[in-house]
Amino acid sequence: MGTTTTFFPVLTIAGSDSSGGAGIQADLKTITCLGCYGASAITALTAQNTTGVQDIHPCPPHFVEQQVSSVLQDIDIHAIKTGMLHDTETVQAVARALKTYYSDKSMPPIVCDPVCVSTSGHTLLHPDAVGAMARAIFPLSTVITPNTSEAELLLSTVEGLATKIVILEDMISASSKLLHYGSRAVLLKGGHITVTMSDISRIASGSPNIVILQEGFLRDSIEILQFHAKPRSAPLSDVRLAVDVLALSDGQVTLFVRPWIESQNTHGTGCTLSSALACELARGLNRDRSSPESGLATVMLVEATKNAILYVYQGIITAPSLGKGNGPLNHLHSIQNISVCKPNQYNQFPLTTHLIKNSFALWEAYVKHDFVRQLGSGTLDRKSFVHFIKQDYHYLRYYSRAYGYLAAKCTDFSAIEDSAKVILNVIDEIGKHRGFCQHFGVTPEELENTPESAATTAYGAYILDMGLQGRDSMKLFMALIACLLGYGEVGLWLKKEAEQDESWVLLDGNPYKPWIDVYSGTPYQESVKKGLELIEKRAAEDPPSEARLREWSAVWRKCAMLEKQFWDMAMNLS
Amino acid sequence: MGTTTTFFPVLTIAGSDSSGGAGIQADLKTITCLGCYGASAITALTAQNTTGVQDIHPCPPHFVEQQVSSVLQDIDIHAIKTGMLHDTETVQAVARALKTYYSDKSMPPIVCDPVCVSTSGHTLLHPDAVGAMARAIFPLSTVITPNTSEAELLLSTVEGLATKIVILEDMISASSKLLHYGSRAVLLKGGHITVTMSDISRIASGSPNIVILQEGFLRDSIEILQFHAKPRSAPLSDVRLAVDVLALSDGQVTLFVRPWIESQNTHGTGCTLSSALACELARGLNRDRSSPESGLATVMLVEATKNAILYVYQGIITAPSLGKGNGPLNHLHSIQNISVCKPNQYNQFPLTTHLIKNSFALWEAYVKHDFVRQLGSGTLDRKSFVHFIKQDYHYLRYYSRAYGYLAAKCTDFSAIEDSAKVILNVIDEIGKHRGFCQHFGVTPEELENTPESAATTAYGAYILDMGLQGRDSMKLFMALIACLLGYGEVGLWLKKEAEQDESWVLLDGNPYKPWIDVYSGTPYQESVKKGLELIEKRAAEDPPSEARLREWSAVWRKCAMLEKQFWDMAMNLS
Repeated sequence: MGTTTTFFPVLTIAGSDSSGGAGIQADLKTITCLGCYGASAITALTAQNTTGVQDIHPCPPHFVEQQVSSVLQDIDIHAIKTGMLHDTETVQAVARALKTYYSDKSMPPIVCDPVCVSTSGHTLLHPDAVGAMARAIFPLSTVITPNTSEAELLLSTVEGLATKIVILEDMISASSKLLHYGSRAVLLKGGHITVTMSDISRIASGSPNIVILQEGFLRDSIEILQFHAKPRSAPLSDVRLAVDVLALSDGQVTLFVRPWIESQNTHGTGCTLSSALACELARGLNRDRSSPESGLATVMLVEATKNAILYVYQGIITAPSLGKGNGPLNHLHSIQNISVCKPNQYNQFPLTTHLIKNSFALWEAYVKHDFVRQLGSGTLDRKSFVHFIKQDYHYLRYYSRAYGYLAAKCTDFSAIEDSAKVILNVIDEIGKHRGFCQHFGVTPEELENTPESAATTAYGAYILDMGLQGRDSMKLFMALIACLLGYGEVGLWLKKEAEQDESWVLLDGNPYKPWIDVYSGTPYQESVKKGLELIEKRAAEDPPSEARLREWSAVWRKCAMLEKQFWDMAMNLS
Repeated sequence: MGTTTTFFPVLTIAGSDSSGGAGIQADLKTITCLGCYGASAITALTAQNTTGVQDIHPCPPHFVEQQVSSVLQDIDIHAIKTGMLHDTETVQAVARALKTYYSDKSMPPIVCDPVCVSTSGHTLLHPDAVGAMARAIFPLSTVITPNTSEAELLLSTVEGLATKIVILEDMISASSKLLHYGSRAVLLKGGHITVTMSDISRIASGSPNIVILQEGFLRDSIEILQFHAKPRSAPLSDVRLAVDVLALSDGQVTLFVRPWIESQNTHGTGCTLSSALACELARGLNRDRSSPESGLATVMLVEATKNAILYVYQGIITAPSLGKGNGPLNHLHSIQNISVCKPNQYNQFPLTTHLIKNSFALWEAYVKHDFVRQLGSGTLDRKSFVHFIKQDYHYLRYYSRAYGYLAAKCTDFSAIEDSAKVILNVIDEIGKHRGFCQHFGVTPEELENTPESAATTAYGAYILDMGLQGRDSMKLFMALIACLLGYGEVGLWLKKEAEQDESWVLLDGNPYKPWIDVYSGTPYQESVKKGLELIEKRAAEDPPSEARLREWSAVWRKCAMLEKQFWDMAMNLS
């Protein structure tokens, strides 16, 4: 995501679903939304939509192998997910590609979703390939993620066990049996098994070693959430539950308990769960790359599984209802758009660029105002300059108070220090103002007693209001920075123009040179630099939603307008 | 994205790139990150990585047609993008599928990226299929997006024109000629043409009808951004530019001018650009579904193109440098993760759920404190209750002042009104406190003169500090709401326990019944409901970044702790 500079490459080896809800399409969407980088090896193409699978075109096994190899040889894959493997030859090709590449390296975590039959009943793995998958892929896998039908098929095909998974105890027993094939863990998905709270209680009382995670029910233990929900949720004892069982090779069994959801938008949930789990493991592994897959802590596996299940759950409850059949879930529920990218080598100031771009006409009217141009050419009426300096003196009182406000809102000493330093810089600046005034024959008493113009009050009181109101102390910051940067821009621009343009009076003959020197000079420009860096840093650390960015832009525009009116006031002597 | 409830389905018809940087993989990532729903028909599989294409497995044309039909017949596609079409039969199959489905409906916008040769030199469209594509697909297309090599190939193959595109004028002329094939617009990508500012000036002065958009150079006209960048950017006259030319059938020509970027991470830029453009058109079309593709306003096409180019540009400058060759761009630059989903039918209070879940032990210690339990059973020492009521009286003074603060921070009358109403409710609540006190023999004077406990000052001053500091007025809101909801929870829980549990003294015999009645009663619970709805609404409108959500959670936990210590204080008479 925009806030992450590390990408975790995840490879999915699976079928393609043209409708985009399952297969590598669901995997890539999941991987992208979880901030990882998705690569894919396609095992078979399906022409399908939410009503079913219309046709399948298998990919030649050697070509599947070539895809896997092309990816592994070039990209440092942090986790692998396998889905539809179609037939025995493909299973073997995948196993061969993995074993060949990782013959002398430790394998990253592998999540095997043993896809056998589609929801609509289409065969996605030839029956004779079930055993091959269990023997060739499961031993390489960190987790296998069968649903109950797949678990039954696996146990009957490979073990010759005519198992029926009907109740929760069957799931626990089957998941443990499936560990025999050599994966580190088995996540048996129970979406089709009817479970109630009494089943959970029975398990909890009979098997103290089974960990039961039921975070999905938090709301049921919070009275206010139950009382004020519309419609009120049914009593917990009456609710149908969905339970997924994670059995680990070290003997730990964890039940993930959630409310069962009545929804037809479940197309691709299995693909999404396994790829979300692969992403979680890729991230987890990254935290400790020194240890191979086998070093993944149990607690991390449980946490990863919990997060992956939550991702799918939220995808189902926010599903968009696309298509005429079993619609896809919503993969996008955990992301939002950001309008300003992070500072980068090509633009260190993307937020400032955005703010100026969004107020460009006003900004130009401010920084290239006639007042500024005449100041640069030395033709400005002295009365206007004196009026400006007197009003700016009053304005700077508001401005320094606003930094006091900012200091009061900061919670770390370095930010409090920064605000105090700005106040001291302003005190220095008003000293210069007193000097300009003296130079132009205005006494300190006259300066102090000059009545405040409406434009001064408007701008000064506005920045204080930004400090008071707002959902966001960045609004105050925006107001302060717009002023700081604008004068910095005026200073640099006037200096550059004076150097370049012969029609402008050389600065040395310009009565306003001391003013221009102040704002183009190093101390002031150091403050400009600090201000630029600070707003960019704060926006990068806490990227604004579109709503907040609109608010910041509005403050910026308002300040540009108030600054323009301030110059107007100086020229009109109003 | 999380903040959008409408999804715009976009279909990509293209090849698959196993390495994930180009092809349908790049398309799906782009479509996802731009908040649209991606479906895909795969024309050919490639085994490739960032160093080149290792192998190609074409998909049978009838199967391409079947994939397109499966999608169109089920999902209301808002825009289509075509990429690698491999050979003449595939071109014809795609054209047939589109014409058949849309024979009696208006076609959505189609963006045709006429992919011919890969960056690494691999043929991705048989030479004899170039003419077929121009004749069969271009006339259906809103925009075609060739690069200069593809434009040269198209003009020589189809028109017999031995065109060489070397300078900007060549691009403008070629883009206009390519309109002959019947697309509404031609976007000719100039990433490989060397352009300087003097070329732009020459075009601008000679062709007044050509619109030149050069937003990428804003920073070069802003002195502060140039002056403070490290390293400083080269003078505009020395900068190499990249120009894309959009020629429209109505005669308008637009140049999109950007700084050229020296980067090897350009794998998949063409795929990304065309799918980003398709997304922009899907969104634009959605704004006015009454008019067919032909009704897309020119201004919308230009805006869509500008946004798509910007998306690719930002993808290149933030690219992660994956792989050993030409790495993929960053598709994720415009999104960030959000940790709390929007209110939905399964959970109307996801933020509150998150806050309570993240502070659960503290929250339980607060709302199920011994003080609360003894209050419910009627066994609480009267001294403790009286001490509590006196201190709560003082606390409520802070609490009402904090709502005054909140009112001062609001900018709409309805929110100001809400705050004022809460203050009046608190005044009503302290009236009840006076009543409790009188009942327990405490005079109004004694109540007023009770010294404030440290726990009271801590909690009261803390919520006022939340009003002062913080990047976010939600911190104040969190502090206020944690208190409001906690007492609501206590009220409802005590009432329920009294009704359910026979070991508890029936409320009628409980000396603290009037207190429980207040907090479980309708007026107080109405406030609870309003508070719940307000924080959920504000979080949904302005989803917090992970950094801000951590801050909110910290405030919530602190308040739960201060509340717990408040009960402690009451029981210790401290």
